[in-house]
Amino acid sequence: MAQSKIRFPLILINYKTFREATGRGAVRIASLAEEASRKTGVCFAVAPQATDLRLVAMSVEIPVFSQHVDPVGQGQFTGHIPPEAVVDAGCVGTLISHSERPLGLEAIEATVRRAREVGLIPVVCADSVWKAEAVASFKPDVIAIEPPELIGTGIPVSRARPEVVSGGVQAIKGLEKDIRVLCGAGISKGEDVSAALRLGAEGVLLASGVVRAADPLRVLLELAEGAKAVSS
Amino acid sequence: MAQSKIRFPLILINYKTFREATGRGAVRIASLAEEASRKTGVCFAVAPQATDLRLVAMSVEIPVFSQHVDPVGQGQFTGHIPPEAVVDAGCVGTLISHSERPLGLEAIEATVRRAREVGLIPVVCADSVWKAEAVASFKPDVIAIEPPELIGTGIPVSRARPEVVSGGVQAIKGLEKDIRVLCGAGISKGEDVSAALRLGAEGVLLASGVVRAADPLRVLLELAEGAKAVSS
Amino acid sequence: MAQSKIRFPLILINYKTFREATGRGAVRIASLAEEASRKTGVCFAVAPQATDLRLVAMSVEIPVFSQHVDPVGQGQFTGHIPPEAVVDAGCVGTLISHSERPLGLEAIEATVRRAREVGLIPVVCADSVWKAEAVASFKPDVIAIEPPELIGTGIPVSRARPEVVSGGVQAIKGLEKDIRVLCGAGISKGEDVSAALRLGAEGVLLASGVVRAADPLRVLLELAEGAKAVSS
Amino acid sequence: MAQSKIRFPLILINYKTFREATGRGAVRIASLAEEASRKTGVCFAVAPQATDLRLVAMSVEIPVFSQHVDPVGQGQFTGHIPPEAVVDAGCVGTLISHSERPLGLEAIEATVRRAREVGLIPVVCADSVWKAEAVASFKPDVIAIEPPELIGTGIPVSRARPEVVSGGVQAIKGLEKDIRVLCGAGISKGEDVSAALRLGAEGVLLASGVVRAADPLRVLLELAEGAKAVSS
Repeated sequence: MAQSKIRFPLILINYKTFREATGRGAVRIASLAEEASRKTGVCFAVAPQATDLRLVAMSVEIPVFSQHVDPVGQGQFTGHIPPEAVVDAGCVGTLISHSERPLGLEAIEATVRRAREVGLIPVVCADSVWKAEAVASFKPDVIAIEPPELIGTGIPVSRARPEVVSGGVQAIKGLEKDIRVLCGAGISKGEDVSAALRLGAEGVLLASGVVRAADPLRVLLELAEGAKAVSS
Repeated sequence: MAQSKIRFPLILINYKTFREATGRGAVRIASLAEEASRKTGVCFAVAPQATDLRLVAMSVEIPVFSQHVDPVGQGQFTGHIPPEAVVDAGCVGTLISHSERPLGLEAIEATVRRAREVGLIPVVCADSVWKAEAVASFKPDVIAIEPPELIGTGIPVSRARPEVVSGGVQAIKGLEKDIRVLCGAGISKGEDVSAALRLGAEGVLLASGVVRAADPLRVLLELAEGAKAVSS
Repeated sequence: MAQSKIRFPLILINYKTFREATGRGAVRIASLAEEASRKTGVCFAVAPQATDLRLVAMSVEIPVFSQHVDPVGQGQFTGHIPPEAVVDAGCVGTLISHSERPLGLEAIEATVRRAREVGLIPVVCADSVWKAEAVASFKPDVIAIEPPELIGTGIPVSRARPEVVSGGVQAIKGLEKDIRVLCGAGISKGEDVSAALRLGAEGVLLASGVVRAADPLRVLLELAEGAKAVSS
Repeated sequence: MAQSKIRFPLILINYKTFREATGRGAVRIASLAEEASRKTGVCFAVAPQATDLRLVAMSVEIPVFSQHVDPVGQGQFTGHIPPEAVVDAGCVGTLISHSERPLGLEAIEATVRRAREVGLIPVVCADSVWKAEAVASFKPDVIAIEPPELIGTGIPVSRARPEVVSGGVQAIKGLEKDIRVLCGAGISKGEDVSAALRLGAEGVLLASGVVRAADPLRVLLELAEGAKAVSS
């Protein structure tokens, strides 16, 4: 009954707050990602909204991430999301400092530490090579590099800014070789995933390319094929 | 099967992020509040963490509030909580700008408007008479006045700062007579509720007094008796 | 947020107690049926086990049926399933007297009546034309004809026993023209659905053909295409 | 997050199909039983309807039982409840052959064996000393003796038929000393529990005394006090 662990290459679907991925829609995208995972063997994970985490974690076997946690504990923190709450809801990890919910370096460090304390896998987002290097010192399990100007554009980072991906991978691995590196922004096709992996990334982070697709399952399968074309 | 509506006097239990009120604990406090409501006829509502809203709303009939929503919509807002998400989870309302999650006036106005658009009852928190007057112009259904220095102290606002309660009520009602006024901070006894209602408040907002009580149900029943002593 | 209504032709997936369709598996099959419904416009419904009804009804928009209800009320009926319980869990209808859970005529009549009282759509199973005629007098919304000797065989009733389908349709419609007729047993392909509809059925009931398929979504899409080939 | 284990003396609340204990009502009674357990240290367990098992098991920490399982497996058993399904829903045990859902000896034996295979605690009900002796040979963990003519009467078995309780205990323990013995029927007061324990029972099984009480928590606390008066 437990959720499966993450494996690399990893395709992580961020639901953002898209209507299509809220409530029953949150289960739908997760089920389709699970289906793509079964069919291709590629590891998919999903990051629903806080209000949907428990429902999704009850409904699918693939790993579930929170989109955000606050570097707070259990106590007087009205309106915040402590890591303990998302663990209780069934999550295995959390995004930290997505460009739509950015944190300062101090807060990132505190959040990585708090996530670790409760057994959550931290996936820290970074919008530049410079930022990626800075957060590497906090030794999160995963860093996702996303140039924010490409998010939601359909122009894949792996084509528009290959140097950010390869440079980010080199910089991060040079500092901490065990940190896994994802890249994101504009990814919607299998070839975008292939390109990302060829540049040294170990997976991708994407959102609208799947969530708002006319046929999300088809996209998910293509992404997986793109991953397999390189990793196998 | 639908949740009941709010009535006044209203006793609103804010779970904050207390461990005792997370996951199964969130259902526990809500069930005990429902029990106190059944036994006394007084309206109780609860405000669990975002990750527990759906589970609590499925489990009890009393009204469920979110502790916070962001003034965003459905779309590219990773890590935020749009009002639509908490409606989908079964909430009837939301706290806004609690002193532990304060917003600027502009954000409060935007959040009240967004909550309204989706049918959520906005309960705006204000830490002073001045702030209460300012937010009254946004015409939220409810304003909760809480001097933050008394929160979690066990020193009730209705005794320590009665002028804040009565002054706040007068100021708010003078501007918008239909806005309901709650008060909070340090409330843990029936007499605190009685005192609040005598000062013109139409209910109370409290957290640790219930959530961390050795016997939450006993406290809930006492609070209800305090409300009935005045309102009946 | 409410579940959609049933439409005809209807493809109703009975989960039986298959492991593949239990718990998270129950959500999986429902999500895939929902996907097939979105892609083809054909109405799919699912009938999970009693313990999974609420989870599935929370997770998908397609109609959810119980596999069985007892003709009892709310009270001293330990170990039974009153229609009220499955309504509370989010179901729109129920199978009655499936050949693996057969009831006598008196119990069928009582169950149809009790289902109706609480707004559940009764789908009565009949293993022969004779039985179908007998239950038609109880005026259930739907009768599903399934020769039990073909269940789970992969030999479709529409090919092996076409006279049971066409004879059943004629007999039922002759008695009560508003009753909808499904047929089942051995159905696993689009052409089985086409054949069934050509024989006068208004949908099919099937289980292992989908639940135990290597690729359930592919089967679901084929079934829908089979339905569309005739109904459009 | 896991449910707690059962301990003796055990007070097991059978929800039957009472309206008051359906859906949100199912969570309510479980939460109140959990509260009584916290306040008194006495072990309470609940047996909700099949459709509510998962919701209740998610919502409380006390042990959850099914009211019935069928001696079937996972497969072609439409409308049945295999033990695997209730384990997946979060149950720790199951009632077997309650007098409102009686099974023949052969079915009881098969059900006890199937429950064991999946790690469910079997609690076999017996309506007489003779029946209790017969089922003891199947070595269920627990036997609950309930003279059906006293069920729901408010006339406690421990007073009306003390010889059935003491005789049952002696007979069962004479055959299999490790089997735990509960008694039930007509139990609604603390003194009924005390009397039962003095007659050698290690707990009680009851339903309407709690579920239909005007104040279920008061009854639950009294039952626990009755248990403590003897066991401590």
